[in-house]
Amino acid sequence: MKVNNKDYRTVWLENGVVNLINQPLLPDKFEIYSSKGYKETAKAIKDMIIRGAGAIGAAAGYAMAQAFLQEEDPKKAAELIKSTRPTAQNLFYAVDKVLKARDKEEALRIAEGIANEDSEASRMIGEYGEPLIKNNARILTHCNAGWLAFVDWGTALSPIYAAKRKGKTVFVFVDETRPRLQGAMLTAWELANENIPHAIIADNAAGYYMSKGEIDLVITGADRIAANGDVANKIGTYEKAVLAKENNIPFYVAAPTSTIDINCASGDKIPIEERDEREVLEIKGIRIAPQQSHARNPAFDITPAKYIKGIITEKGVIKPTREEISNIVNP
Amino acid sequence: MKVNNKDYRTVWLENGVVNLINQPLLPDKFEIYSSKGYKETAKAIKDMIIRGAGAIGAAAGYAMAQAFLQEEDPKKAAELIKSTRPTAQNLFYAVDKVLKARDKEEALRIAEGIANEDSEASRMIGEYGEPLIKNNARILTHCNAGWLAFVDWGTALSPIYAAKRKGKTVFVFVDETRPRLQGAMLTAWELANENIPHAIIADNAAGYYMSKGEIDLVITGADRIAANGDVANKIGTYEKAVLAKENNIPFYVAAPTSTIDINCASGDKIPIEERDEREVLEIKGIRIAPQQSHARNPAFDITPAKYIKGIITEKGVIKPTREEISNIVNP
Repeated sequence: MKVNNKDYRTVWLENGVVNLINQPLLPDKFEIYSSKGYKETAKAIKDMIIRGAGAIGAAAGYAMAQAFLQEEDPKKAAELIKSTRPTAQNLFYAVDKVLKARDKEEALRIAEGIANEDSEASRMIGEYGEPLIKNNARILTHCNAGWLAFVDWGTALSPIYAAKRKGKTVFVFVDETRPRLQGAMLTAWELANENIPHAIIADNAAGYYMSKGEIDLVITGADRIAANGDVANKIGTYEKAVLAKENNIPFYVAAPTSTIDINCASGDKIPIEERDEREVLEIKGIRIAPQQSHARNPAFDITPAKYIKGIITEKGVIKPTREEISNIVNP
Repeated sequence: MKVNNKDYRTVWLENGVVNLINQPLLPDKFEIYSSKGYKETAKAIKDMIIRGAGAIGAAAGYAMAQAFLQEEDPKKAAELIKSTRPTAQNLFYAVDKVLKARDKEEALRIAEGIANEDSEASRMIGEYGEPLIKNNARILTHCNAGWLAFVDWGTALSPIYAAKRKGKTVFVFVDETRPRLQGAMLTAWELANENIPHAIIADNAAGYYMSKGEIDLVITGADRIAANGDVANKIGTYEKAVLAKENNIPFYVAAPTSTIDINCASGDKIPIEERDEREVLEIKGIRIAPQQSHARNPAFDITPAKYIKGIITEKGVIKPTREEISNIVNP
């Protein structure tokens, strides 16, 4: 996607250096973060300089390639990189894939392949998802599953970008997505960048607009999809899915098939990362709660398959059933 | 309730001056705001120096008394005071009640009566609601319907305070309640003050804890209750009610009968205040969104009666049906 008329990916490798769009600085500042070694790249993933399922996967693949390039122990590197974020399926997928390389060149090729695959999958998700969006559709999205969360295009936002380019008029309700505000800070920034009309709302207001008939469909991303169609995604996704069902609004999940963890039987087997309570107690470093109070901060939740109308993948839109998921993973 | 071992009400009148706990300064600073005339008191309501159904009602009653005391035109005062917040039933109730006074003394007596009634009703809500709370109960609440939202005791929190005083162990999940964060800033402050164990959560996380079986009941307040049992309350209440029903968790609304608007047939007749978009786009004055982005900011939503297990009033717990509501208003 373009920023200031220049094409960017969210993450890329150049002369052994991993470059990342520094996401915590958005929307105020657009800056590239450069990481010279795999440990630094792993730390950037852990500290969420880069975040989002596909972007984490590509960054993890590049971090592994850095380990190969710098002749570090790839197994040790794999262990460290895997320890950064426990929920994202793409991270494990990428690390394991590069770990199989026999030399530097192959590691580099595999890592580039992962990034290119991710970008192409996101573009195809746009193609397959676009027909679901009618002209003048009002769409709700949660968190950021835009191009910043992937290498390019994104997942939940990719069909919206495709619809826009085909000349459709769309309006996007953007859940601000507490605690980290990826909706207000990243999704809104992407949409503004693409001149797509949108309104940021408190997460609390999504149900209100659904009940008023002002939302036609919901599209979110996914961090991991279990074999039965249950979906792990940003905390709050489950709430939106239940509300969409209650209001007869179709709820779609957009994700590449690399997000499917076929060895994970159901959502209750997916580990949920609990993050630092300060993400809730502070906003941009400013305390919003009493000093004596504590917070709990699960980063993801599980949306059972029964609330999901379809999963938009790079191979087509499927129903969240064991059979369709199994068929798409092993065609 | 006590602050630093001294008994306080949220609002009181002394020598013609209306005193208010300055709520936007909490939890950082406990300070009393003093208003010398009805216009200033109306502005304090509009600017949310004081907020919450019952507290607004009492403050509005005192503002009317100030108009009488200062020999201003009571009808003009009533008009101004009513224009401050469109959703809260208690405000209209209080203004109309004092407006009927024939002189200063009667206006003062009626205004004091409203505040005392509110305090006593809140205490009784605690008595009637307390048996709904089992020992070791884990309770979710949304926004602030504690004593800060009333003259004393509160509504949603009153049964929790009563349970604590009877020796029960309770744990409260506090929705932070974006956009204005009344949960994180006010409810948590009240609970910390009363030594009640609690955790602040992002509004997005409530459904997660419900689905994990970690929440036993939900209690919220109400800003207006229609004759059919539909409830207007802080934005996000509807979401929690739908999620509670989906997870078979009882959802209670606690409110004095003065919150019932018997002339309002159903929830869709209740006007919903839309507030300044900056409440969403900024937190404590710091912009969290791109400069080009806009927000929408409904302050309340409607929870249909079918999601509500019971309404805890000062006269007992009732079902949200036309019949039971009519009987409790006109016994």
